Amino acid sequence: MVKLAIDVMGGDFAPQEILKGVNQAIAAYDDLELTLFGDKTIISQMVQSNPRLKIVHAPEKIDMGEKDPITVIRKNKQLSLVQALQAVRDQQCDGLVTAGPTQGVIVGAHLIVRRIRGMKRVALCPVLPLFGGKNRLLLDVGANTEIRPEHILQHAIFASVYYQETTKIKEPLVGLINIGTEPGKGREQEKEVFQLLTNSPHVHFYGNVEPKELLTTPCDILITDGFSGNLVMKTMEGTAKALGLALKEEIGRNLMGKIGYLFMKNNLKRFKARLSPDEVGGAVVFGVDGIIVKAHGSSNGYAFSRAIHQARLAILGNVIAIMKEKLVVEEDE
Amino acid sequence: MVKLAIDVMGGDFAPQEILKGVNQAIAAYDDLELTLFGDKTIISQMVQSNPRLKIVHAPEKIDMGEKDPITVIRKNKQLSLVQALQAVRDQQCDGLVTAGPTQGVIVGAHLIVRRIRGMKRVALCPVLPLFGGKNRLLLDVGANTEIRPEHILQHAIFASVYYQETTKIKEPLVGLINIGTEPGKGREQEKEVFQLLTNSPHVHFYGNVEPKELLTTPCDILITDGFSGNLVMKTMEGTAKALGLALKEEIGRNLMGKIGYLFMKNNLKRFKARLSPDEVGGAVVFGVDGIIVKAHGSSNGYAFSRAIHQARLAILGNVIAIMKEKLVVEEDE
Repeated sequence: MVKLAIDVMGGDFAPQEILKGVNQAIAAYDDLELTLFGDKTIISQMVQSNPRLKIVHAPEKIDMGEKDPITVIRKNKQLSLVQALQAVRDQQCDGLVTAGPTQGVIVGAHLIVRRIRGMKRVALCPVLPLFGGKNRLLLDVGANTEIRPEHILQHAIFASVYYQETTKIKEPLVGLINIGTEPGKGREQEKEVFQLLTNSPHVHFYGNVEPKELLTTPCDILITDGFSGNLVMKTMEGTAKALGLALKEEIGRNLMGKIGYLFMKNNLKRFKARLSPDEVGGAVVFGVDGIIVKAHGSSNGYAFSRAIHQARLAILGNVIAIMKEKLVVEEDE
Repeated sequence: MVKLAIDVMGGDFAPQEILKGVNQAIAAYDDLELTLFGDKTIISQMVQSNPRLKIVHAPEKIDMGEKDPITVIRKNKQLSLVQALQAVRDQQCDGLVTAGPTQGVIVGAHLIVRRIRGMKRVALCPVLPLFGGKNRLLLDVGANTEIRPEHILQHAIFASVYYQETTKIKEPLVGLINIGTEPGKGREQEKEVFQLLTNSPHVHFYGNVEPKELLTTPCDILITDGFSGNLVMKTMEGTAKALGLALKEEIGRNLMGKIGYLFMKNNLKRFKARLSPDEVGGAVVFGVDGIIVKAHGSSNGYAFSRAIHQARLAILGNVIAIMKEKLVVEEDE
């Protein structure tokens, strides 16, 4: 069985949408065993009792706009997120799915679940929207603003294991985010990471990738430091948002546009859906001793159920155990 | 009169489209005096003689795909780009417009025209597509991969002078590209730049800007180091490209989409045009002793004429002289 802790109270539309996602996931996957951390009364109202569902009463939550989630997590052991993380630490659950605030999840995972022995840094790894038949991973997007080349190598290995075991695509292709494609481009950091990736037997290295190929590159995994990755991810979001607004404006500008819209309404809906994070699930915290999936704060029930599925695949794929072995091999080399 | 050197041979569609741009610009602005560096025979065929046009025969050019434009520029003094830069250095012209390869233009400007006394680094500064009625500047996008906070401050001052004098908008608002909006976010570099920008009397500082607000921020100028800026710019390009493809795919998927397209064809054309670099002109090399505008490699005649206009505005605005004064004041402080 796949044992997952669920933070029922985290997210913009918690607990209702989270519980909808729980209902969908429990119906879809027979191998799931979920422990729900949240307000017992609300959970009992929204969720049918099921031998594969446990409830732990933990109604306290971090405000999604909390400026200092780290301090809040350190001080309040009653939070649904903290209790769910403790269940992972105590190996009652193999992983956690939460739509709570990103920095809180990363820090909580770090402080409570703790890093795998040998892993030097954790990384936050979202899945990019599907383009050209591919769901690419991008990491790190914010766990580390300053980082050493050997830590980036570890992240690349972790992402390769994760990708291979969750998609069953062998030897996923890893690209290094850079300002030019030729070897030797970039800062000292990129030059050193390029060498490490070239020499690693655990990574199938493609070379440098400029972010203008972000959604069209043959790579499965795009790797960089947490500062650069965060900028890339947020630039992608910002551009998509601005273009969406511009498209709406131009279509609404005259009658022809509005008539055309009536015809292609469904086409434009599908276009919008392709950029939606709902299909993909969430971002994974790589490096701690458990599968932690951070669903989008704005997750609806469907999106949250996809995030549960994502955690399920990583646990079925035995990602943590395989990574632990690679770390031992690496230490011996 | 505004005296500009024109590199007729640089660009994917040179010399034909460049010369079309020259014809458009010379007809549009009575105060322009252009010196054309390129193949005399072709120029004479395409351009009508005019007392405000001079021709210097310089038919040699750098290949747009040249892997090492720097070496080529150092070795070959006959290149149209090199001769045009020399005309700026010798103060025969106040500036240069070229669609040649970016690295070649930056290095050539650096080696031949040279930095303004007191300017520590040059920066490449493109104009972002028009959104919300604003054309924002983004810099540096590639001249410096590693840079000190005080150099970024100089770039912010330069960009402020340029923006104010070319648009006549007083005290343009400067934002620092960062991974969060609160002060204290980012790497050591961002923290130090934040302080410098806060304390500078020459910059109207807004604070941190996340790139998800890239095209919607109230800021006129977005500042960062050359590595981060290059990633942001290329991510924007890549996202726009991928979304354009996805939109086309979804519309072409069925008959309703195709019928809808017939109605809103012009609306979609206007949407596409909003992302086009043609309206904006080119990127400016900040920091050298002359106005150097690098038009897009793929410039057509119209785009090139806009780049000429952009250089014209900077010269009429006396940008270099005003910046020199600020640098003297800064040294005295």
